[in-house]
Amino acid sequence: MITAKGYAAQTAESPLAPWHFERRDIGAHDVQIEILYCGVCHTDIHLTRNEWFPGIFPMVPGHEIVGRISAVGAHVKKFSVGNLGGVGVMVDACRECEDCKNGQEQFCTVAPVQTYNNLDHEGKPAYGGYSDSIVVNEDFVHRISEKLDLAAVAPLLCAGITTYSPLKKFNVGTGHKLAVVGLGGLGHMGVKFGKAFGAEVTVISTSPNKEVAARELGADHFVISRDEEQMKNVFKHFDFVLDTVASSTDINPYLNTLKTNGVYINVGLPSKPWEVSSFSLAVGNKTIAGSGAGGLPETQEMLDFCAEHNIVSEIELIDIKDIHMAYDRMQKGDVKYRFVIDMKTL
Amino acid sequence: MITAKGYAAQTAESPLAPWHFERRDIGAHDVQIEILYCGVCHTDIHLTRNEWFPGIFPMVPGHEIVGRISAVGAHVKKFSVGNLGGVGVMVDACRECEDCKNGQEQFCTVAPVQTYNNLDHEGKPAYGGYSDSIVVNEDFVHRISEKLDLAAVAPLLCAGITTYSPLKKFNVGTGHKLAVVGLGGLGHMGVKFGKAFGAEVTVISTSPNKEVAARELGADHFVISRDEEQMKNVFKHFDFVLDTVASSTDINPYLNTLKTNGVYINVGLPSKPWEVSSFSLAVGNKTIAGSGAGGLPETQEMLDFCAEHNIVSEIELIDIKDIHMAYDRMQKGDVKYRFVIDMKTL
Repeated sequence: MITAKGYAAQTAESPLAPWHFERRDIGAHDVQIEILYCGVCHTDIHLTRNEWFPGIFPMVPGHEIVGRISAVGAHVKKFSVGNLGGVGVMVDACRECEDCKNGQEQFCTVAPVQTYNNLDHEGKPAYGGYSDSIVVNEDFVHRISEKLDLAAVAPLLCAGITTYSPLKKFNVGTGHKLAVVGLGGLGHMGVKFGKAFGAEVTVISTSPNKEVAARELGADHFVISRDEEQMKNVFKHFDFVLDTVASSTDINPYLNTLKTNGVYINVGLPSKPWEVSSFSLAVGNKTIAGSGAGGLPETQEMLDFCAEHNIVSEIELIDIKDIHMAYDRMQKGDVKYRFVIDMKTL
Repeated sequence: MITAKGYAAQTAESPLAPWHFERRDIGAHDVQIEILYCGVCHTDIHLTRNEWFPGIFPMVPGHEIVGRISAVGAHVKKFSVGNLGGVGVMVDACRECEDCKNGQEQFCTVAPVQTYNNLDHEGKPAYGGYSDSIVVNEDFVHRISEKLDLAAVAPLLCAGITTYSPLKKFNVGTGHKLAVVGLGGLGHMGVKFGKAFGAEVTVISTSPNKEVAARELGADHFVISRDEEQMKNVFKHFDFVLDTVASSTDINPYLNTLKTNGVYINVGLPSKPWEVSSFSLAVGNKTIAGSGAGGLPETQEMLDFCAEHNIVSEIELIDIKDIHMAYDRMQKGDVKYRFVIDMKTL
């Protein structure tokens, strides 16, 4: 066993605090990664506080992991010691079901292993990236380019792929009008990818004071969602709406902004169900689409695309001792746009 | 003015009864159709009874119209007297908006004219197909093949295009598993088109006694929706679900039957909103799609496809005096599968 150090929540009520625990030995197909940076995702808050469902404690959160390979198993082919590697929301799957065979391992229901708050194939808890190192099967580790700012790459592993994947699925690109609702960790990546794919991007936000930032990120237009007149002006206007806001409980105003055949894509995952009228979809052949992270091949594709187009997340680098300040600020929407933990502060 | 005879509801509370009214004179681009058959759509019940919204009375319902051209305006090019012609859910639109230019006139919001319960461009009420004749701009009249049973063609103008259009939009075909929920006027057309496009078709119904009929129509499999075991067996099973049931208020059981990237298509138009969880769509990248009728080019395409593949609706031909019996039986789901009025009984 490998002794690892990290930050863990001992229960859903206790603050995160330093903790020593064991990682499995490096198997023939495993790599060990010295974690350099780990992004802080809203999911980390939800799961450590049992906001979605009861968790497995102690819990070491973190699923936006980048670092250097520090050891490799006997049969590892993809990595050598010293390479950069990245891990996202999952660390294993059954590899045999239709989803796994189609490169959509994130939806494996046979033997999925999430990066944390889940049991691995040996029945032991998986611990995430708020840690000095991690041992992962090489297939679930992504190649990371040396040319980007590594700390700013970390959020690509979750916020990046979560927004890249649906935009790719629906072929969002040149000639399309894309609205991105919300300008947080997900939203700002939605703007960057939307622009990189050639779409005309409008940011829709409750806060007028986000306009400058939206335009700095490349947005062509800005709409205040609470301004009825502005919303009326975008009636039947967009081909796609990418809604990144976790508090989007009424999606009907956004459906109204869609053109015929328009697609509303939700990645904000509000916990309260929506009320949706069949008529609001039938009139205009509209579609509501969900999207959850991305599979292994598409995550690598996204990372390669980012390296080629010089795309990273905008981040605030923090010391790990400041994680609760980060959680508090995230809950107020006060972060531009993703906190990333500098793991040398552990 | 042309004097026409029909069946009308004088108010939302009064039964349909014979009524004489005026059709506009035949304009340069108009054709007059001697109506031979008119299908009876559930919408006729909803609208004559103000179930969706307050209607325009007196109301002559009917938007599944077929007949022979009995007169043509001076500039009509598409039809000659004696040709067959068909009219569906709309009789005019603005012709200039993006929807009209894209051949999706059914979604024109600038100057749409529904076949009935709507005002035409001169501000006069449009009267539908429970009538001996109708005057319509030739662009909104479809060519009908002489080779099919004309009475059985009538329902194609609404039930046909309503199911054809979404299956075409999502390229449902060979290699796909399609579930059709409900085996009524829409559902039985969904089975026929699904099979014609090459899909493996499963009918999902509450009634075990519909299995024989489903298989006669070409369905490969049959699932009873109230049987938990049978529904469990189709977990993550279908590429597409086409839900044709107006009482589908809980769509979550159907979302569970979808594979990753599966699409739930609703054409049943339940009046009560659904409760949809964002998670049920995100896990599996699932999509909920609405679909409303079809545009002019696609409706003609559908009619041509039906002529080529010998597809018509299964119908029960009725005398117009029996329209209330038909409405009553439709509300019990007791029709195989569409009532069509023989207009010579008017």
